[in-house]
Amino acid sequence: MPETADLDVLRGLFTGRLLLPGDDPAAIAPFLVDWRGRWHGAALAVAQPDTVDGVCAVMRWCHQHRVPVVPQGGNTGLSGGSVPDDTGRALVLSLSRLNRVRQVDTVNNTLVVEAGVTLAAVQQAAAEAGRLFPLSLAAEGSCTIGGNLATNAGGVQVLRYGNARALCLGLEVVTPEGELWQGLHGLRKDNTGYDLRDLYIGAEGTLGIITAASLTMFPRPAGQAVALVAVDTPAAALQLLQHAQQQAADQLTAFELMSELCLKLVARHMPSCRMPLSTPAPWFVLLEVSHPQSAALASSALESLLEGAMEAGWVLDAAVSQSETQRQALWALRENISEAQGAEGKTIKHDISVPISRIAAFVEATSAAVAQAFPEVRLVVFGHLGDGNLHYNVSPAEGASGAAAAAGFLALEAPLNALVHDAVAAAGGSISAEHGLGVLRRDEALRYRDPVAHRLMLQVKQAFDPLGLMNPGKLLPR
Amino acid sequence: MPETADLDVLRGLFTGRLLLPGDDPAAIAPFLVDWRGRWHGAALAVAQPDTVDGVCAVMRWCHQHRVPVVPQGGNTGLSGGSVPDDTGRALVLSLSRLNRVRQVDTVNNTLVVEAGVTLAAVQQAAAEAGRLFPLSLAAEGSCTIGGNLATNAGGVQVLRYGNARALCLGLEVVTPEGELWQGLHGLRKDNTGYDLRDLYIGAEGTLGIITAASLTMFPRPAGQAVALVAVDTPAAALQLLQHAQQQAADQLTAFELMSELCLKLVARHMPSCRMPLSTPAPWFVLLEVSHPQSAALASSALESLLEGAMEAGWVLDAAVSQSETQRQALWALRENISEAQGAEGKTIKHDISVPISRIAAFVEATSAAVAQAFPEVRLVVFGHLGDGNLHYNVSPAEGASGAAAAAGFLALEAPLNALVHDAVAAAGGSISAEHGLGVLRRDEALRYRDPVAHRLMLQVKQAFDPLGLMNPGKLLPR
Repeated sequence: MPETADLDVLRGLFTGRLLLPGDDPAAIAPFLVDWRGRWHGAALAVAQPDTVDGVCAVMRWCHQHRVPVVPQGGNTGLSGGSVPDDTGRALVLSLSRLNRVRQVDTVNNTLVVEAGVTLAAVQQAAAEAGRLFPLSLAAEGSCTIGGNLATNAGGVQVLRYGNARALCLGLEVVTPEGELWQGLHGLRKDNTGYDLRDLYIGAEGTLGIITAASLTMFPRPAGQAVALVAVDTPAAALQLLQHAQQQAADQLTAFELMSELCLKLVARHMPSCRMPLSTPAPWFVLLEVSHPQSAALASSALESLLEGAMEAGWVLDAAVSQSETQRQALWALRENISEAQGAEGKTIKHDISVPISRIAAFVEATSAAVAQAFPEVRLVVFGHLGDGNLHYNVSPAEGASGAAAAAGFLALEAPLNALVHDAVAAAGGSISAEHGLGVLRRDEALRYRDPVAHRLMLQVKQAFDPLGLMNPGKLLPR
Repeated sequence: MPETADLDVLRGLFTGRLLLPGDDPAAIAPFLVDWRGRWHGAALAVAQPDTVDGVCAVMRWCHQHRVPVVPQGGNTGLSGGSVPDDTGRALVLSLSRLNRVRQVDTVNNTLVVEAGVTLAAVQQAAAEAGRLFPLSLAAEGSCTIGGNLATNAGGVQVLRYGNARALCLGLEVVTPEGELWQGLHGLRKDNTGYDLRDLYIGAEGTLGIITAASLTMFPRPAGQAVALVAVDTPAAALQLLQHAQQQAADQLTAFELMSELCLKLVARHMPSCRMPLSTPAPWFVLLEVSHPQSAALASSALESLLEGAMEAGWVLDAAVSQSETQRQALWALRENISEAQGAEGKTIKHDISVPISRIAAFVEATSAAVAQAFPEVRLVVFGHLGDGNLHYNVSPAEGASGAAAAAGFLALEAPLNALVHDAVAAAGGSISAEHGLGVLRRDEALRYRDPVAHRLMLQVKQAFDPLGLMNPGKLLPR
């Protein structure tokens, strides 16, 4: 542990609120717990540098004094990756004040942003330049692009535009020693050595600190149309997916699956969300078509592909948005599922992916197995079918309330995880598709990881962070 | 060096022609020189295992006896990455017989292929399944997918579909110790640890041996249309690019720039290639629009965007393909440039990229500087403008022939490289966009590399290949 005098040196590097000492509990409290209130920790101090030089200075100090560093962006993660442990030995390095948009280049279609810029502000900077930055997810108002890259975030536009990794051309990174790697180019093609960029992306801050990124922008579609479609089975939804991809190719920009219960919960808890279809169905698909020239062309392309799907018998019923208001109302059905599920009690979340060709059989067999082993729970299944990624979530029985019921439900988490994740592994899938490992999935991931891959990952960690100071205990066991 | 008895052990692992001994010069000769005849080496033996177990066995033997390994695919690289040095100590590990298509999944839109499958055979496997594998480059008939991944190959469809890295979902890799990492999933989303895949991609065989890959396929466009367009300047070509991207979005699948001299050389050496435009112009663009539903719709989209560009004054003249034959004839103009340039004597190649917003100023300033410093040479400039990637090539003066002229020309290579690559670096660009470093660009790349990045790359190499046996002297200095 550093001495008081050492802490004074660190304090001397900053003015005002850029360093919050650990002996000011009220000031540092928000940095010690995740937003769901699931993980609580303690810290020596919280540093909030507003320059890259400041980040380097903090890192040099931590390296010199062997102080573990927990990088934190918007602290909106679902896996506990940005919260310190309870030893109080670590420094929380918040990147939230490193939040400048450094460059917008409409000819190269790139922007350079610092790690602490919120995702919504990145989208906004692109929009002001007449371009699209397509990464889009529920926490976009408060999550930061640094955190999005550290966790390789996904969301609802991955089908067309890829995940955070696919949208990043270059990085600026501070190493555990406090050195700066300037890899912030805006090039689509560069084969001049090992791909360090992709090593930091998805590393959850365990190898170094991402301080800035060069990101790709896209032409902004002139208009979009959305449909809500009732289908009988996930298999029918997959038929519709293939048909839509063949017909619309890249104009298909979202393809989301939702179980009937998802929409019932939204209707129950968000009375302003109106269900546009009266046909009862066990599954629903929300699909979006974007068109470079107009919303009307997007609508007609969407209607045309749905006609073909109706004739083929894959679709029970469908509603197509005829205005921007209707489009947003349909999206609201999808976007409110998590909150509606939260209103039903505790949630056990699974963020899984399997090959798209195995998803229908996976859902059928796993849902039957869950129903048999845990007859008291309800499955709330939704997600990005076009990416093979489902949030295969679980809620307590209807009406189960109170602390005892919640405790009883959460006691099911480990055996439920084992059942679901074993099924995922058997289908060649991943137990963490877009939320990262953090502490939540760290040990489970190890259980399913190829042993050679695990040895290689430990070697990467040892090579980049030999003192083990970077976000210890996240992603890899300590 | 291993003893004769040790070599007998290796030979015992294989039957027939799967191991070619170094004392059979005729048999191993084709593996010791690159296809341009620029680099010649020697080898202890050439192993051509036809199973992954065979690759593991070779690697274990090499590791035990500390024998360097030079992995080789189609041996079509332009940077000398797949040829052994002249010590004769290394074993060449040819992957060409590891050439099975293991799986085609039309619902997941993926295929699993072994490293030795040629790129053309991968394209063919996708086509037979009614899908598109879009990686496309001149050597596709003989290069292998393993080599494409090891060098992160680019080509003419990167604008829309990305480079080899972007098309790969999972890898199977044999480590220097002969262990197998089974990372061959077909998932669009997987965040369960460090991104080992992207570390092997582009590593030019210096970290391990890629034995198989899981690749993405795309819906096959129903039709395409191509235009050849005359423009005044690269800046006008860029205006056209932006306009085309805004109008056609992802239906724009290629955007290639060519200087006037490129087309003159093609006309001179390939009399069957007819130039469809009579308007003289200093620069030409070949652009392609693909449509999911028909070639007629592709043509009309292309014509419509060209009309707008004509009205805006960015285009001097244009010819649009009206048939598949015409489309292929226009592509032939672009595809024959390298061969036509080869017929003009030796070529000094530069495979550069700069941000697209800086490419016009780069070309103007650098071409003026080359003309002043090397008045006797001719620039043959063409490439993938949509990716910011130019083959900024140089030929000797018109009519300069004979060995002395060739030697004099090649003596200009180092100072020409310095001029061009310094200008690239000043523009924030890369001196190796899609060809890799091999031995050709290894030392130059070091000159321009961020020192922190270099230290990190050495640490990666040390972590993955501590004995330095993997393709020594390629990508990184020995």
